[in-house]
Amino acid sequence: MRISKLVGSRTKEQPADAVLKSHALLMRAGFIKSVANGIWSFGMPAKRIATKIENIIREEMDSIDGQECSFPVVMPKELWDESGRYNSIGEELVRFTDRGNRFMVLGMTHEEAAVHFARDNVTSHHQLPFMIYQIQTKFRDEARSRGGLIRVREFTMKDAYSFHLTHEDLEEYYQKVYDAYVRIFKRVGLKNVVAVKSDSGMMGGKISHEFMFLSDAGEDKIVLCNSCGYKANMEVADAVVPVNLSVEPSKMQEIFTGDAKEIDEVAEALKITKDKTIKAVVYNIKGESYVVVCFIRGDYEVNEAKLKKVVRREVVPANLGSESEIKAGNIGPINLVLPKDSIVVYDRTLKGANGMVIGTNKAGYHTTGVSVERDIKVKEFVDIAKVKQGQHCSCCGAPLDVVAGVEVGNIFQLGTKYTQSMGMTVSNKDGVAVNPIMGCYGIGVGRALASIAEETSDEKGLNWPLQVAPWIVYLCPLRYDDPVIKEKSDELYSKLTSAGIETLYDDRESSPGVKFADCDLMGIPIRVVISQRLIASDSIEIRLRASGITQTVSNSECLERIKKLMVINDMS
Amino acid sequence: MRISKLVGSRTKEQPADAVLKSHALLMRAGFIKSVANGIWSFGMPAKRIATKIENIIREEMDSIDGQECSFPVVMPKELWDESGRYNSIGEELVRFTDRGNRFMVLGMTHEEAAVHFARDNVTSHHQLPFMIYQIQTKFRDEARSRGGLIRVREFTMKDAYSFHLTHEDLEEYYQKVYDAYVRIFKRVGLKNVVAVKSDSGMMGGKISHEFMFLSDAGEDKIVLCNSCGYKANMEVADAVVPVNLSVEPSKMQEIFTGDAKEIDEVAEALKITKDKTIKAVVYNIKGESYVVVCFIRGDYEVNEAKLKKVVRREVVPANLGSESEIKAGNIGPINLVLPKDSIVVYDRTLKGANGMVIGTNKAGYHTTGVSVERDIKVKEFVDIAKVKQGQHCSCCGAPLDVVAGVEVGNIFQLGTKYTQSMGMTVSNKDGVAVNPIMGCYGIGVGRALASIAEETSDEKGLNWPLQVAPWIVYLCPLRYDDPVIKEKSDELYSKLTSAGIETLYDDRESSPGVKFADCDLMGIPIRVVISQRLIASDSIEIRLRASGITQTVSNSECLERIKKLMVINDMS
Repeated sequence: MRISKLVGSRTKEQPADAVLKSHALLMRAGFIKSVANGIWSFGMPAKRIATKIENIIREEMDSIDGQECSFPVVMPKELWDESGRYNSIGEELVRFTDRGNRFMVLGMTHEEAAVHFARDNVTSHHQLPFMIYQIQTKFRDEARSRGGLIRVREFTMKDAYSFHLTHEDLEEYYQKVYDAYVRIFKRVGLKNVVAVKSDSGMMGGKISHEFMFLSDAGEDKIVLCNSCGYKANMEVADAVVPVNLSVEPSKMQEIFTGDAKEIDEVAEALKITKDKTIKAVVYNIKGESYVVVCFIRGDYEVNEAKLKKVVRREVVPANLGSESEIKAGNIGPINLVLPKDSIVVYDRTLKGANGMVIGTNKAGYHTTGVSVERDIKVKEFVDIAKVKQGQHCSCCGAPLDVVAGVEVGNIFQLGTKYTQSMGMTVSNKDGVAVNPIMGCYGIGVGRALASIAEETSDEKGLNWPLQVAPWIVYLCPLRYDDPVIKEKSDELYSKLTSAGIETLYDDRESSPGVKFADCDLMGIPIRVVISQRLIASDSIEIRLRASGITQTVSNSECLERIKKLMVINDMS
Repeated sequence: MRISKLVGSRTKEQPADAVLKSHALLMRAGFIKSVANGIWSFGMPAKRIATKIENIIREEMDSIDGQECSFPVVMPKELWDESGRYNSIGEELVRFTDRGNRFMVLGMTHEEAAVHFARDNVTSHHQLPFMIYQIQTKFRDEARSRGGLIRVREFTMKDAYSFHLTHEDLEEYYQKVYDAYVRIFKRVGLKNVVAVKSDSGMMGGKISHEFMFLSDAGEDKIVLCNSCGYKANMEVADAVVPVNLSVEPSKMQEIFTGDAKEIDEVAEALKITKDKTIKAVVYNIKGESYVVVCFIRGDYEVNEAKLKKVVRREVVPANLGSESEIKAGNIGPINLVLPKDSIVVYDRTLKGANGMVIGTNKAGYHTTGVSVERDIKVKEFVDIAKVKQGQHCSCCGAPLDVVAGVEVGNIFQLGTKYTQSMGMTVSNKDGVAVNPIMGCYGIGVGRALASIAEETSDEKGLNWPLQVAPWIVYLCPLRYDDPVIKEKSDELYSKLTSAGIETLYDDRESSPGVKFADCDLMGIPIRVVISQRLIASDSIEIRLRASGITQTVSNSECLERIKKLMVINDMS
């Protein structure tokens, strides 16, 4: 490809709204362009990277007997009614009516379509297990798209669905997919990916794993134990419950705390640490007038995913504004008046705590000296706390790390949720009709692309691993207006492309500085320079983007040297 | 691939609603499944065929310097407001609001997205010409989807957009795309494709061609001259105007014709041929109370595409029901009372005609002996007639053929419609900002697939050309339950796949009849049979799906023979 014709302009300017490196660099290199919030156009370089990632995914899916299919983007409501998801999924599911006033949806995952395709086609257990997958455009109307390609609304996803007769068979296949995912992320060049146990959310299954690219660019929090290897998404992470300092029980006493409302303010006002306070966090339940009040030790935060499981409802943080019945601040477990049917939940961090401070349910006052067991009637302590950095691993006792991550893939054991609701059965060995047990498995292509950019880029720009680089060689003649140089480099360009080495040819009459900067910004792995000086010694200069290592190579050896660099690098 | 696990059941049953061969056979072979009206799921075999077609298209687009990009399926209204198409396109454009109540559309073509991507990225004429393309899912809310994959609502399309400084440059590139299209249809195995001049419709350009697969499966009509090679879509086709028989002018006379309303009935009642009658055809204009009345010789039909160009408005056939002001039948050009602002159009077939029969604008009567020039005040005769089979070619005078076709591709010279409305400029050689001139070029992948099926299939089933076949070899052991046969065929399966020969392995314990029928139905080019008898002579049997030629080949030669068959066939 000649860069003079490549659509996509490069700029030094940092895009105003880009917080993440990958976002800024992909835009600065002219690889992507925003069309609307969370909706992007991919230029040729980004499309080439995406295709290479897709091909690696495809090879690995095929290697575990995946059958590549294609399900529609637009589906009728009726199909999503069968699973119940037309109603159960919120605004992230796009709904519209077609010209015949039939209700349609834009696919955000394709469990319904996969079961629809398989159910009449598969009738006997002999046909199980099988896995069908596609690599296809999806639309999810995210409330907050962000970070360039990290969280978008329209995206290309590999989604796979497996069908099994027994749980054992699913488990066995699940492990195969797990292993294939490990290979995929390795092959696309992502080093810092870990698989963590996760909450399967709206998918409705039980066991699931997320493949997390560990990076500050991520919004997800992951709990890691560097000692025993325990890994879990914050949403489901466990840890040893902190021990409450053995304080002798004392007498309860109401104390004026003035305007102190937030737990930090209360601790500050009373000159105590936050672990001696009991914090109240209030949640609403969509469409209901009652609330959920959580009491938790003041130095912990509520984990909403855990809370949802405890109360078995979707919760949203309550807005305790001036119009709310319940006033923010001073909420405490004693004499608390709540709307009918409200739920009060106590976190296990409170168990056995003495000498605690609680809100008094009246403005300006808190109560000290509270013994949880003695003064509050708690029927049950539950786990609704977010694990904290340094908290101890419940497996081995070592201190835990809490790190940020980007979810680049996920695998779920779905069970029979979809085959049951959608009436898919096969006859088992005894001729009895049973619902196949499903697994489903996703990888976001654009997010993987952005994650690679995030992990490998440096202050000079993008820096693609060979296996996904849009081009392998950046051919860079200095002074393209010099006819001798032009001739030599045109010759080398045709030699490289004939040898199947993907080459981006900088055929502009720009300065070396501009050319080198563009090569670095675009992150092409191997830069080949041709100049008057080099031609004089019948050689070229090779420079590796990743290491910065530069070598002068004789013209005759050039092709072999580049091929060798491609192999070595691929093995690393 | 082992057929025992392949999702997609084969059946002898003809699908109830399938009129076309391709529709019925693709369903009967288990390749596709209907999800909703005009929306399909592709199973593994159909997806493999589609991928091969896409790869051929991609290679040819890359060979003419195409840059593969990816534009979004979902786009904001604002983008389509820029071109004016948000309002000008009818119900086939899906519109919806996202969770933030922003208006969005589903892309049916991507001129807007292509210009949006290019306009800030390209600023100088040095960067022209270039072509950007994608192969992507589109949605067009067709009123009547039909014929399986022939006319659908959701489809995969290759859409390409080129940008030029001059018309000459566009013309030159347009020819390159034309040639690439000829190669593409040849390479995917479609023999009966012709390029015809066409009406560019909503695209808004001038010169355009449609690539028509000639087949009764098509809805489009094409006019062909076998003598000089003239080819045109019916919508724009020209022909020599028929000469009106030299009849001496006679006197006009009102005649009772009773219930005769349709032109056939009138001719029958008066014992004359239809070419002696003047037919009236009435059209409505959307949103207007006035009408368009067309007068045309009774043996011709109105071509609505031509009419639209003449009146420069969208016309729809008028419903002259009992509530209509204008009554069907007996409509004639003399003393015709019409709503204010109505338009009357005379086709050129009427020029110089004498002794014609017209409606008298009152029930039960027609007028004979009409001389058009003498009795009707016609300011202008226009061409709004559909060309008829046997009418003479306006280029060479030979009789024309009218045949049916499926539009498998199209190319348009767009001009500056989009670059102008969307404000894309480049500086020309004199530093003046000018709008680039565009071309756009589409191919529907699924429609090409169905067309190949339509052209190549026979009474036994599908019959894929090697270059797009889902698998090359159908490996068919007779009596898979026999351990010797099983061993031999498992061995051959792994030999074939190791050699890179795509093989569908019939590993079922079914009867030879079932296996052979499935092989024929699925249309796999080369069937390889292993049986006890063949093993006894250490040989296999090869049968070609297309020709039915069967050969017995020694086991050791088998691989070479298959490879040879693949090469020969590819050259044919």
